[in-house]
Amino acid sequence: MVLGTTFVLVFVPASAAVGILFALTQWYLVSYVTVGKSRVSNNGYMQVDEDGIDDASVNAKCAEIQAAISEGSEAFLTTMYTYLAIFMGLFSVIIFVFLASVGGFSFDRQPCDYDQTKSCPSSIASAFFSTVAFILGALTSTLSGYLGMKIATYANARTTLEARKGVGKAFAIAFRSGAVMGFLLAANGLLVLFLTILVFKLYFGDDWVGLYEAITGYGLGGSSVALFGRVGGGIYTKAADVGADLVGKVEQNIPEDDPRNPAVIADNVGDNVGDIAGMGADLFGSFAESTCAALVVSSISSFGNDKNFVAMCFPLLISSAGILVCLLTTLVATDIMSVKGVKEIEPTLKRQLVISTVLMTVAIFLISWFGLPETFTINVVGHEAKVVKNWHIFFCVGSGLWAGLIIGFVTEYFTSNAYTPVQDVADSCRTGAATNIIFGLALGYKSVIVPVFAIAVAIYLSFSLAAMYGIAVAALGMLSTLATGLAIDAYGPISDNAGGIAEMAGMSHEVRERTDALTRPDTTAAIGKGFAIGSAALVSLALFGAYVSRAGIASVDVIQPKEFVGLIVGAMLPYWFSAMTMKSVGKAALAMVEEVRRQFRTIPGLMEGTTKPDYKRCVKISTDASLKEMIPPGALVMLTPLIVGTLFGVETLAGLLAGALVSGVQIAISASNTGGAWDNAKKYIEAGASEHAKSLGPKGSDAHKAAVIGDTVGDPLKDTSGPSLNILIKLMAVESLVFAPFFAANGGWLFRG
Amino acid sequence: MVLGTTFVLVFVPASAAVGILFALTQWYLVSYVTVGKSRVSNNGYMQVDEDGIDDASVNAKCAEIQAAISEGSEAFLTTMYTYLAIFMGLFSVIIFVFLASVGGFSFDRQPCDYDQTKSCPSSIASAFFSTVAFILGALTSTLSGYLGMKIATYANARTTLEARKGVGKAFAIAFRSGAVMGFLLAANGLLVLFLTILVFKLYFGDDWVGLYEAITGYGLGGSSVALFGRVGGGIYTKAADVGADLVGKVEQNIPEDDPRNPAVIADNVGDNVGDIAGMGADLFGSFAESTCAALVVSSISSFGNDKNFVAMCFPLLISSAGILVCLLTTLVATDIMSVKGVKEIEPTLKRQLVISTVLMTVAIFLISWFGLPETFTINVVGHEAKVVKNWHIFFCVGSGLWAGLIIGFVTEYFTSNAYTPVQDVADSCRTGAATNIIFGLALGYKSVIVPVFAIAVAIYLSFSLAAMYGIAVAALGMLSTLATGLAIDAYGPISDNAGGIAEMAGMSHEVRERTDALTRPDTTAAIGKGFAIGSAALVSLALFGAYVSRAGIASVDVIQPKEFVGLIVGAMLPYWFSAMTMKSVGKAALAMVEEVRRQFRTIPGLMEGTTKPDYKRCVKISTDASLKEMIPPGALVMLTPLIVGTLFGVETLAGLLAGALVSGVQIAISASNTGGAWDNAKKYIEAGASEHAKSLGPKGSDAHKAAVIGDTVGDPLKDTSGPSLNILIKLMAVESLVFAPFFAANGGWLFRG
Repeated sequence: MVLGTTFVLVFVPASAAVGILFALTQWYLVSYVTVGKSRVSNNGYMQVDEDGIDDASVNAKCAEIQAAISEGSEAFLTTMYTYLAIFMGLFSVIIFVFLASVGGFSFDRQPCDYDQTKSCPSSIASAFFSTVAFILGALTSTLSGYLGMKIATYANARTTLEARKGVGKAFAIAFRSGAVMGFLLAANGLLVLFLTILVFKLYFGDDWVGLYEAITGYGLGGSSVALFGRVGGGIYTKAADVGADLVGKVEQNIPEDDPRNPAVIADNVGDNVGDIAGMGADLFGSFAESTCAALVVSSISSFGNDKNFVAMCFPLLISSAGILVCLLTTLVATDIMSVKGVKEIEPTLKRQLVISTVLMTVAIFLISWFGLPETFTINVVGHEAKVVKNWHIFFCVGSGLWAGLIIGFVTEYFTSNAYTPVQDVADSCRTGAATNIIFGLALGYKSVIVPVFAIAVAIYLSFSLAAMYGIAVAALGMLSTLATGLAIDAYGPISDNAGGIAEMAGMSHEVRERTDALTRPDTTAAIGKGFAIGSAALVSLALFGAYVSRAGIASVDVIQPKEFVGLIVGAMLPYWFSAMTMKSVGKAALAMVEEVRRQFRTIPGLMEGTTKPDYKRCVKISTDASLKEMIPPGALVMLTPLIVGTLFGVETLAGLLAGALVSGVQIAISASNTGGAWDNAKKYIEAGASEHAKSLGPKGSDAHKAAVIGDTVGDPLKDTSGPSLNILIKLMAVESLVFAPFFAANGGWLFRG
Repeated sequence: MVLGTTFVLVFVPASAAVGILFALTQWYLVSYVTVGKSRVSNNGYMQVDEDGIDDASVNAKCAEIQAAISEGSEAFLTTMYTYLAIFMGLFSVIIFVFLASVGGFSFDRQPCDYDQTKSCPSSIASAFFSTVAFILGALTSTLSGYLGMKIATYANARTTLEARKGVGKAFAIAFRSGAVMGFLLAANGLLVLFLTILVFKLYFGDDWVGLYEAITGYGLGGSSVALFGRVGGGIYTKAADVGADLVGKVEQNIPEDDPRNPAVIADNVGDNVGDIAGMGADLFGSFAESTCAALVVSSISSFGNDKNFVAMCFPLLISSAGILVCLLTTLVATDIMSVKGVKEIEPTLKRQLVISTVLMTVAIFLISWFGLPETFTINVVGHEAKVVKNWHIFFCVGSGLWAGLIIGFVTEYFTSNAYTPVQDVADSCRTGAATNIIFGLALGYKSVIVPVFAIAVAIYLSFSLAAMYGIAVAALGMLSTLATGLAIDAYGPISDNAGGIAEMAGMSHEVRERTDALTRPDTTAAIGKGFAIGSAALVSLALFGAYVSRAGIASVDVIQPKEFVGLIVGAMLPYWFSAMTMKSVGKAALAMVEEVRRQFRTIPGLMEGTTKPDYKRCVKISTDASLKEMIPPGALVMLTPLIVGTLFGVETLAGLLAGALVSGVQIAISASNTGGAWDNAKKYIEAGASEHAKSLGPKGSDAHKAAVIGDTVGDPLKDTSGPSLNILIKLMAVESLVFAPFFAANGGWLFRG
């Protein structure tokens, strides 16, 4: 161990600052493209002829559409944040009261759990700090989602405008904007967490166990916001999408993104609030939770006992190094090997994953070598302490990191139309929608196999080497390239929006083709989801381990009735939750369909394009419906741990968490890949790039119609129910962890005696 | 405790004999309807006018069709049994070698596990008896499936002919035939098992532990045959069904069951080999396994130590009483309150479930009271012995029984078109196939909630009262009304076949309407599947408990790496398996589609009805394809426990079983209910019995087309992948139990050290 405290105190905030500065630089570069007025010089690029439309008017039109999308997104998020503020207020009270009740609301300092001769903060103080951490986590998560939405709605029209100059230019704008979101989010999360630790430390002093237990509130706060962001945003985006398609494409026979469709703005808003803000909040939650899990576990290790601040901060060092690694990786895409043509887009994005993983492996090696003592011990409740060497930790973090890459590539294999699985699904459209659905479902089920093995190997390796600490840092390893992952993720919806704006602004076919080319590698979203689920699995397991430790459970023995009942009911929860979210999308979409039909019926001249539809009303309907519909599934997730822990006790809750985890991972992966495969099977037929694809097309053929049905079914699976499951498993685990002292002291009313 | 040994020695075989006699009586009553020659007197019933076709020729035509179906079914089963014979031979060798290797292939008697001062049979002897039990189980299961198929193909044309006299007459034939199968199977299974125990006892003497461990081979044999029966039969039936529909209904526009369709006989064969033989083998497997699990657990309880033969036979007493109770219940349907009109069919079937459950509750009370000591102890490896009272056991068995009834009614609620869930799904067809699929999937997910809670409550109650013995007898409780359940199950496909024969024989519309009325309550199949899954869950848990006990594992602690990795991989297996079976159906259906197309193309006069199609070739194609396709999923199930146990050891295998169980139950229930709901949503629209239904129809409307797509997707879900999952979870558990001594002694090569 070489690194000292000063290094940590400088390196962590400096990395965060570099990340934020880098994000702002990218933002500045994006802002160089102006929307609304014609500041843009052509810089020697050929600008595509706009079929007689002059530059200024196109620019103005783009600005107008962008403003509408931005306004709608902002309206949704601010309304949602109002709801969230109320919820957060209530939940803060619950956290405070429950945790303070453990020590009888006493202001007296109490003997420490880990050492009865020392005195630790009073229960009121612990409860207070947990609550504060909760609020900070919630605020940071909110900020992450909001900033992501902001930059995305800032970049979409700019990407469209740049597409007139060439696909490389447009790619640069979309990708840079993605990077703004990725780096802001990663750096912000790290910085706030680090500062919170430093401030809390002023009060907690040497009570590291108490300090890091309070810090877990940060993870809970982040994840709670993510829950509603993912679910609300997911319902919004799919309700608008399905609603717009069902009336526009099917009934009125107008193309996608046609400005005559009243739901078209709502559809584009959906991309920003669902795929951007929701995804951002989700991954921020994973980051916060895995860091908290690692910190809690290490606080009861020898680091904690030895007061080894540098080693304690190991999780933060990984994330700091991750920001720098991702920065280098981004430069490869934007400056060193920038995209010149359509064919380079997909390899460039894939290269990002590989480069960041390879570089990160080196970084992890260095940090493990220099930032950890050569040998240390991890303490596990009810078991012998585990002696760990620093190179063990390298393998733990590395296994998570590389498992992530494997999951990414498997996801690509199963959802990209360059490989046989999606082509088989497309081929099955020949015999109609039914076979398409059967083959798609089978594909999703099959796609679970390798990722689960990858996760299992990472778990076994890290678990064997460093117990629960190993799992927590493996999760951090998978998330260490977060900034790059998020950049790629955000790139997708931004390009998608850019295409929508091109269509709505009436730009030429050529521009539309270029924006389509940007979204062609439509596996980016699926890969991002793969990462999100894989990391959620590891994070939840780490949190589960921390919970078990904190609740003082010696073993989670599933041949005991309490545990087994928890296990089987836990495995059922993802189904219950999915049923709710899928039904919600259906209901919200129906509300949208009715409104769109009403507008086509009652607004004269709408179909002819002489009158404008009432976009705002559609935005409002989507907003209201999705906010109303997000409450029941949200309540299911938030209340289950509280009810089970209070009524049935810590053992049943432990079984429940394990069941939800192992069952949820499978549904989440299969739902997301099935949806992705249907989406790309449809695109495969539409693009008609091969002889085989041509034999299935063209657009409007029977096979294509069957493919469209699959795509529509896949929408809620891949964008609402599937990704929300990540949060279900993570959030229940972190909530259980935070409330563990209460459940251990007062839980299990029904199963007692 | 009142009952003595003599009572048991008389009561069990007598009940079995009564069951067999009853079945034969029913068979005799069915045989009174003749097919092929005109022996039938009209008995004063109005016979429907056959549009100028004379009775003799209709009768001859029915006989011809019946012969074709029977021949096809027999061909499939005998070919499958040939495959199975080879497999059974190989697997017998594996069982013998693996188990004999534990004691180093020694012929010397060895000290007993439970009492080192006593001597027990040599490892060679134990291995030999296990292998013999395995072969007996396999043979009994084969016989059960075969007899079921025989009676079903015997009864179908008879049901058709009776339908000319009235719906009540037809119902009686179909229901009596179902009863033949139900009683033969339940009584046969019981009798063979009881005799095997008595014979084995001659050798084992007082070594009850060794005796009942050897008996577990019976469960493994039964379940192995069931696996291939369910999977092979499931692929067969759906390949033929989907293949026939895709070309016949969709491409050639001819009605269902039209004799011009070359796949029509294969389709009807499918009902017999899949829904009848497969289901029979499956439920026989559950019966055999739960009895074995209860016996193994009780052999290490105080019954075993006290050599209390009557108490040891408690599981057999329940099954014996079950046969008598079901007999009384059947009389209610056939004689006391027989069906007179269409409206009485559904209530009659439902009443069967309620009556048998209520009567059985009384029977269980009596047997628990008189057949068990007032207090006894259940021993659990690694835990304190559990003191149990006889009335505790009443609650255990009863909880399983009533959980079964609840599952049955919930299944009905979610799959019958008399209630809102299916009506909502039908309504969603308005907006197309996509919304139909989304709503159907959501319905299936939602339908999991209550059954899982019912199972969880039964598990918690029985587990708490009597540990693993409680679970085993709860499973027996659910299965105690097996004969009635099977009768209702078999009734469905028999009526379905009857309808097909009516269509093919060119009978009048009125006859077809009557046979349709018989199959109208199409929730019987779904309810049967609900029972099968629920009992599979309990059985697997009981077997899991017995395995853990026999493998000498003190706890299955899922926060240990070995166990957790097993858990998450186990939870993945049902997905892998479902992907395989669904893909298999797709492939086999495709082979069928090509053949049917070929025949329509190359056989002149086929479409005009002047030439006959080559039915046999279609039967052969379905047979070959399904037998080939059943091997990979079968291998996955059979090999996984062997590989995991050998390479990764008993703890990982324990985790794997728990994971597969809790995850498989959910997919199985949701797949089967989703499929059932789509099926009945389609029928709801076709029947047009309400204003709402009429607004969606008629046949051929857009909404109806959307409903047909859902129905086709649901076919492999509800008839292949869903029900096969029962066997996946049960079989892996019983296989682990049989091989437990080997794994405990020699397993875990990779995870050692």
